[in-house]
Amino acid sequence: MDEAYESLKHLPFTDLEFAKVDNHRAMRKGFPEVIFCQGKTPGQIKTIAQALLKNADALLATRADEAAFEAVKSVEPQALYHAQARVISVDKRADKKAVGNIVIMSAGTADLPVAEEAAITAEMLGGSVKRIFDVGVAGLHRLLSFYEIISQAKVIVVAAGMDGVLPSVVGGLASCPVVAIPTSVGYGAHFNGLAPLLTMLNSCATGVAVVNIDNGFGAGYLAAMINRIGEETPGMEAKDSG
Amino acid sequence: MDEAYESLKHLPFTDLEFAKVDNHRAMRKGFPEVIFCQGKTPGQIKTIAQALLKNADALLATRADEAAFEAVKSVEPQALYHAQARVISVDKRADKKAVGNIVIMSAGTADLPVAEEAAITAEMLGGSVKRIFDVGVAGLHRLLSFYEIISQAKVIVVAAGMDGVLPSVVGGLASCPVVAIPTSVGYGAHFNGLAPLLTMLNSCATGVAVVNIDNGFGAGYLAAMINRIGEETPGMEAKDSG
Amino acid sequence: MDEAYESLKHLPFTDLEFAKVDNHRAMRKGFPEVIFCQGKTPGQIKTIAQALLKNADALLATRADEAAFEAVKSVEPQALYHAQARVISVDKRADKKAVGNIVIMSAGTADLPVAEEAAITAEMLGGSVKRIFDVGVAGLHRLLSFYEIISQAKVIVVAAGMDGVLPSVVGGLASCPVVAIPTSVGYGAHFNGLAPLLTMLNSCATGVAVVNIDNGFGAGYLAAMINRIGEETPGMEAKDSG
Amino acid sequence: MDEAYESLKHLPFTDLEFAKVDNHRAMRKGFPEVIFCQGKTPGQIKTIAQALLKNADALLATRADEAAFEAVKSVEPQALYHAQARVISVDKRADKKAVGNIVIMSAGTADLPVAEEAAITAEMLGGSVKRIFDVGVAGLHRLLSFYEIISQAKVIVVAAGMDGVLPSVVGGLASCPVVAIPTSVGYGAHFNGLAPLLTMLNSCATGVAVVNIDNGFGAGYLAAMINRIGEETPGMEAKDSG
Amino acid sequence: MDEAYESLKHLPFTDLEFAKVDNHRAMRKGFPEVIFCQGKTPGQIKTIAQALLKNADALLATRADEAAFEAVKSVEPQALYHAQARVISVDKRADKKAVGNIVIMSAGTADLPVAEEAAITAEMLGGSVKRIFDVGVAGLHRLLSFYEIISQAKVIVVAAGMDGVLPSVVGGLASCPVVAIPTSVGYGAHFNGLAPLLTMLNSCATGVAVVNIDNGFGAGYLAAMINRIGEETPGMEAKDSG
Amino acid sequence: MDEAYESLKHLPFTDLEFAKVDNHRAMRKGFPEVIFCQGKTPGQIKTIAQALLKNADALLATRADEAAFEAVKSVEPQALYHAQARVISVDKRADKKAVGNIVIMSAGTADLPVAEEAAITAEMLGGSVKRIFDVGVAGLHRLLSFYEIISQAKVIVVAAGMDGVLPSVVGGLASCPVVAIPTSVGYGAHFNGLAPLLTMLNSCATGVAVVNIDNGFGAGYLAAMINRIGEETPGMEAKDSG
Amino acid sequence: MDEAYESLKHLPFTDLEFAKVDNHRAMRKGFPEVIFCQGKTPGQIKTIAQALLKNADALLATRADEAAFEAVKSVEPQALYHAQARVISVDKRADKKAVGNIVIMSAGTADLPVAEEAAITAEMLGGSVKRIFDVGVAGLHRLLSFYEIISQAKVIVVAAGMDGVLPSVVGGLASCPVVAIPTSVGYGAHFNGLAPLLTMLNSCATGVAVVNIDNGFGAGYLAAMINRIGEETPGMEAKDSG
Amino acid sequence: MDEAYESLKHLPFTDLEFAKVDNHRAMRKGFPEVIFCQGKTPGQIKTIAQALLKNADALLATRADEAAFEAVKSVEPQALYHAQARVISVDKRADKKAVGNIVIMSAGTADLPVAEEAAITAEMLGGSVKRIFDVGVAGLHRLLSFYEIISQAKVIVVAAGMDGVLPSVVGGLASCPVVAIPTSVGYGAHFNGLAPLLTMLNSCATGVAVVNIDNGFGAGYLAAMINRIGEETPGMEAKDSG
Repeated sequence: MDEAYESLKHLPFTDLEFAKVDNHRAMRKGFPEVIFCQGKTPGQIKTIAQALLKNADALLATRADEAAFEAVKSVEPQALYHAQARVISVDKRADKKAVGNIVIMSAGTADLPVAEEAAITAEMLGGSVKRIFDVGVAGLHRLLSFYEIISQAKVIVVAAGMDGVLPSVVGGLASCPVVAIPTSVGYGAHFNGLAPLLTMLNSCATGVAVVNIDNGFGAGYLAAMINRIGEETPGMEAKDSG
Repeated sequence: MDEAYESLKHLPFTDLEFAKVDNHRAMRKGFPEVIFCQGKTPGQIKTIAQALLKNADALLATRADEAAFEAVKSVEPQALYHAQARVISVDKRADKKAVGNIVIMSAGTADLPVAEEAAITAEMLGGSVKRIFDVGVAGLHRLLSFYEIISQAKVIVVAAGMDGVLPSVVGGLASCPVVAIPTSVGYGAHFNGLAPLLTMLNSCATGVAVVNIDNGFGAGYLAAMINRIGEETPGMEAKDSG
Repeated sequence: MDEAYESLKHLPFTDLEFAKVDNHRAMRKGFPEVIFCQGKTPGQIKTIAQALLKNADALLATRADEAAFEAVKSVEPQALYHAQARVISVDKRADKKAVGNIVIMSAGTADLPVAEEAAITAEMLGGSVKRIFDVGVAGLHRLLSFYEIISQAKVIVVAAGMDGVLPSVVGGLASCPVVAIPTSVGYGAHFNGLAPLLTMLNSCATGVAVVNIDNGFGAGYLAAMINRIGEETPGMEAKDSG
Repeated sequence: MDEAYESLKHLPFTDLEFAKVDNHRAMRKGFPEVIFCQGKTPGQIKTIAQALLKNADALLATRADEAAFEAVKSVEPQALYHAQARVISVDKRADKKAVGNIVIMSAGTADLPVAEEAAITAEMLGGSVKRIFDVGVAGLHRLLSFYEIISQAKVIVVAAGMDGVLPSVVGGLASCPVVAIPTSVGYGAHFNGLAPLLTMLNSCATGVAVVNIDNGFGAGYLAAMINRIGEETPGMEAKDSG
Repeated sequence: MDEAYESLKHLPFTDLEFAKVDNHRAMRKGFPEVIFCQGKTPGQIKTIAQALLKNADALLATRADEAAFEAVKSVEPQALYHAQARVISVDKRADKKAVGNIVIMSAGTADLPVAEEAAITAEMLGGSVKRIFDVGVAGLHRLLSFYEIISQAKVIVVAAGMDGVLPSVVGGLASCPVVAIPTSVGYGAHFNGLAPLLTMLNSCATGVAVVNIDNGFGAGYLAAMINRIGEETPGMEAKDSG
Repeated sequence: MDEAYESLKHLPFTDLEFAKVDNHRAMRKGFPEVIFCQGKTPGQIKTIAQALLKNADALLATRADEAAFEAVKSVEPQALYHAQARVISVDKRADKKAVGNIVIMSAGTADLPVAEEAAITAEMLGGSVKRIFDVGVAGLHRLLSFYEIISQAKVIVVAAGMDGVLPSVVGGLASCPVVAIPTSVGYGAHFNGLAPLLTMLNSCATGVAVVNIDNGFGAGYLAAMINRIGEETPGMEAKDSG
Repeated sequence: MDEAYESLKHLPFTDLEFAKVDNHRAMRKGFPEVIFCQGKTPGQIKTIAQALLKNADALLATRADEAAFEAVKSVEPQALYHAQARVISVDKRADKKAVGNIVIMSAGTADLPVAEEAAITAEMLGGSVKRIFDVGVAGLHRLLSFYEIISQAKVIVVAAGMDGVLPSVVGGLASCPVVAIPTSVGYGAHFNGLAPLLTMLNSCATGVAVVNIDNGFGAGYLAAMINRIGEETPGMEAKDSG
Repeated sequence: MDEAYESLKHLPFTDLEFAKVDNHRAMRKGFPEVIFCQGKTPGQIKTIAQALLKNADALLATRADEAAFEAVKSVEPQALYHAQARVISVDKRADKKAVGNIVIMSAGTADLPVAEEAAITAEMLGGSVKRIFDVGVAGLHRLLSFYEIISQAKVIVVAAGMDGVLPSVVGGLASCPVVAIPTSVGYGAHFNGLAPLLTMLNSCATGVAVVNIDNGFGAGYLAAMINRIGEETPGMEAKDSG
């Protein structure tokens, strides 16, 4: 058995001591490792960004504050900071193409940071994204006016805080997969997102799956994976996998 | 101060040792004390029913099984058992009148026992009740087909398990108070009703209040109180408050 | 089915991209959409306030800080800021009338912000409000001295933190609906309002329903809806529903 | 240090392999070790009872079913079974004296098993006990009619399920310590006693302490300890502490 | 607005009083309404099955016991009962075709009922399913030996109880969407599935979404929706949508 | 009944609108109402202190910061601030006497603020207090060296965070009531005091009761009430109860 | 990378469809895979036992009922059933040797099933085990009388329900690692073992680690691994690892 | 019995009033008492450090901020501050020797503070430590490349936040004990470390035990105790145990 594992040692990653950058991920997943900035120092983020950009034309960093952005910008001047979504992106790919049809919805205005994180992630992974914000069910006609867009989507992401009701209603209307994101928007018996999380997990509508509270990135990533099916979008080739 | 409390001793209740039957409640609340059968022996239920029927023409007992029904029936042969709702009722009032307009809805078929407990309670307290069952949002058109009834209600009770989404949607459509009952119908991350309870407490729709999980009785009672407003229905007079 | 939903598109709302202002709500609910300020930027609040005031003579904004107030004031100089309740109100209605009889109680002094949010909301919706603050059961005679007011109320709102006991006791004394608000006032095993929330949901008194922790707005709104029954108070007409 | 601990080895206990009977407890606590029957086989209970009765004139066993009673009775024919309280008692003490003034109250009829467990425990430990059952606050006058007894108590035990409100109200009226027992009587958001437990821990009334859910034994024991203060009741002497 | 909702009334559903069968779902979702048997009486299940089979060639019923099966069989003799998965199926469709490539995995043997519910659901919706059971990470080589199948899947469903680790590891290896099902298999701090639920929601691997504890049906349904993308499988036509 | 409650209106309290000061409490409880400062403005605290000191020679205010102290000091220059315990005290009683024997223990150094709150409270209510701090069971001999003091106490208060083990061990050694205070000292799975709270509620030792997390005041108050039994300490007479 | 994983396919396991028996575990861990019977049918258990016994001289099965035992016995007549511990063992190893010094303690008699599961597991893995049962801290001298055994142990396992205090006290006395097992023995705020679990995780004593509630197997296994260090006990050789 | 406990009084500790320094611990545990700085003032830390260094050549203080470091440094200029791990160390021992083979791993970069606390603690207690950081399972080959180091370890510590999956996978590969530390790194349904805590407690891999969330110290200490077995490392002698 030792022999078997031995051979795995030669797969590509960059050992930075405090981090092991997974250079093989682009091959496996179609996009390089994404930097989750929370809990990392600007210095660590800078070093990881450098290691990643050696092998790739694009970079995504989430949960990023201004200091994280400065760190990445010092490595790559074309880096952009999406403040509301707390996302840093670098995109120097020659042939960008937005395929498929991803609809990203939010129940309220306060859910926008999460919904935007999902939207930017999905766009970075090559998805064509439509945004529909603030269509909670307290005014059902607002939602129903977008019925056509909903019924034509290839995959839908729905971010909702408070009671987290929107994904159930959208799931009842749509014929495509729905990725539900509970958000931490709320108060009291909302328990920082527990309430909409439970609502969504118990949804009676079929075709609904759930990601972690406020995990716009995860929902956007999954939506992009689903959206890629049947499209000619080979994802990102790693420049150099060694 | 002792003097003050002293005078309170003379208010009417019947001391059965293991229970103190509140004969004053009909005056205060418009309906006699209701027997909550859970945790009481048939013998205790019988004794309490006897004490209550001495002073009143009507009786309601909830969470009642067959043994409880036998106990009450031995005291009052006209007693009825509503098996699905687990409710016993006695009604020998001369002038029964159903007033107002209470709509009682359920999201699913499995919520019927709770919804029926609410409906029977509301009816016993003099309310006119319409039932709309199994109109969960997974098929939104089923709900919307009852929009006219919803918009004309004086008060609405909504029982829902699973994701507990229905009260939010009804609350967005209705112009009257909505009393939401989370039910224990569900599984997994439903946690015996916690999920719909939290959903309902966090409802974005205005005019929604919540009662305990599976508390059909409480919701029906409150709905009847609201429904009574502005109607000529003096509730139940206690026959004898001594 | 597409046809059916198609027609719903023409119902009135104003699309601000980040928000969809529900201009139809005044017709449906008797008062325009209320701005929940938490999680919105002052710029967003200002834009929403503008959109709402185009169609209505009154405006309510909750969970508002000073910056939110400045934003609304820049749109409407008559705006008032109720600092303790964190509420902004605008009221330019010609014929204001306070009807009915709403009693708003608090168990402690620290519950005042929540109780005041309920009171101002109820008043904005046309209710006549009596306030009784700091009558927790540790000194029962304080509460009992208001027994007459309690027994004459049309609807009662009770805000209580700590053990959340007051609504049960008031519910036992009153003959009208009681809307209970658990507050986040407490510490330790209070768990930010969970303790009084559970107390209230399990209340043995009949006619008690519960809203979310600290949801003074929701309780005041519901109380005003109940209070409106049987009164000649048509609510707020929307100026223009298109 | 080994030396120090060495000397402790000679303190009295009986080693039954599966159990170590603490013969020293009567000296330390004033009553022999009490058998907690839950999770023990009848054979184990019998052996422990034998070991205890070798050194003492009285025995208490809680959470006991019929099989446990048969086991104890085979050892000591004078054993009594208190079925409602699930308690077995043996009392062959020559000079029984009930001292002090313990009041044991329950909010509802269904709380009786727990209240009775407290009462029998307190009586076994020499306390004089008054019982007041079913005086929940939904009918406040029932409670207030016992105000005199409440204000003269030396210590009060209050068992309450559902919302657990009674100890707060009693604590506001009494001038003596109140031991509160949350019971598992309830349903839904009661979470098997969590709701009244939190209510009681957050009580605004002074002089209230709490024991575990359904722990009638613990409350009765503590009440007896408090009740013993200032009385001439030396507790139970162990017959033989070796 | 009334007008708009009015038109929705004419959408197809069958009103059985205790249930409203959604005949429009096949059009919207590609498969008729599925019967969730839990909490329904055999009589109710029979009536619903009859109503559904009037309009469709296939039927699926989940959480079904033997009594439910007898009820369905009395309506349709070709009904099959999958005991381990607690699923009833009827399939009289002329042209059955299994398309795509769904891999359904379980971490342990005890997770089979849930995994099988997912597999049968996915197959009923037209998916081609491969099963890989009992490949938990305690013996990692068992999992890795299926690496080729994992890397070629179009969508993967992973059922896991206990620590719920498997979806994270599979998500790290696969390049397709992973639908994770926490199961209630476990004990102690597993809290009936809470532990694997939280593990899966917090998965570091990208492309993982979660459904409710033990919700094999939901996962299988979603997987089938994803699997259908890009395939020529029009789903199920409703026979009669009026 | 109205008549009965009517008479209660004449019991003494001072109505400050935002607060109702209970002037009757000193008669009922032996010490005037104590000010819980958390959530009150300095202005409110000042007004309440003034109202209380009109009728009493002593005052206690808990959870007080410096601003609260300044407020009280402006009313009564002799006020003292116990910073570690966050307690304000005023004591102008002519004949102070410390009776009984209260032992107050802490498991760790970080529990001192809570233990001191208990100690000062108990002393203000006339108890003689011994302090034993930092005797957690990780070094059992530290605790055992105080065995004599423990075995002679009339009542013991034990504050403990982290695992909350100390009250169980003390309860096993002592022959008097033990009041256990869980503290919020800890981290991780301590959940802000939940861990020691549960430990203490489940204590196997007899004679242990529990107060809220960090509730030094409540424990000190209860200990003083128990300590007062059999002593000649009439508590505090209210100067003027009208 | 495919190449690397390819080689792993040849590691030994037996594919039984519903289970994959890990024949490599004995090499890796020193003992063959253990059968966790919960959730497996007798038929499945039998088949797995057969597969395991083909390659090994010993077998352990936990959480086993009588039916599971019959299944194993039909495969291997020498199988033994330890009813209290719910464990099945087969041991046909030629040279059995018990090495090291493992002490296994329980706080109460009701914890014996869990403690025995740990003891039998540790013995099957070659450890020499001493048992000390029912030494909870309510009678501290019982525990201290075993101080010598405690201080000489190589590793200690402590099972405790209720308040879970014992591991902290033992951890304070011992100089070796302590493996703590919370048990589900208790009631009320014990929450099926949550209380002692939290107590143990927050232990102030050093050298204490925790396993899952009731996980006697896991604790015994870990203790045996620690106990094996420095001993000449090569564990179990797999007979045939292919 | 008093006699027995009496003798324990003479065991060594230093009474600082607010703290009782356990001078006996070095004898009992092989290392002096460690200062847990959280909740202690710099002044208290300084006094405790002085008392400890009177009797020992080495000192460890955890959860220390800069102010705590200044306090210790004023007592002992050779003190070092490990900022990332928030640990202070003093080591003036003549013969330092690092024995055994402890591997300390982290799943992510953000887990480093906890992993470093474990590593420094283990090194202070004489262990030889290898660090492997950022080898989470999202890129399994990174982990497998360290398989040789894993399989040769004497004991392994694994710190992981998020889903907490790493210890299960390492436990499946390793043949030595694994001490798992859940960290508070994560968000949403991570609940400050609850998610990885539950994952680890439910681990299917054998030989895994768990310490409190973020308890790097506890894990490092336990690992050092296990690592010491069979080595010639007498731990730290206390200079003076009186």
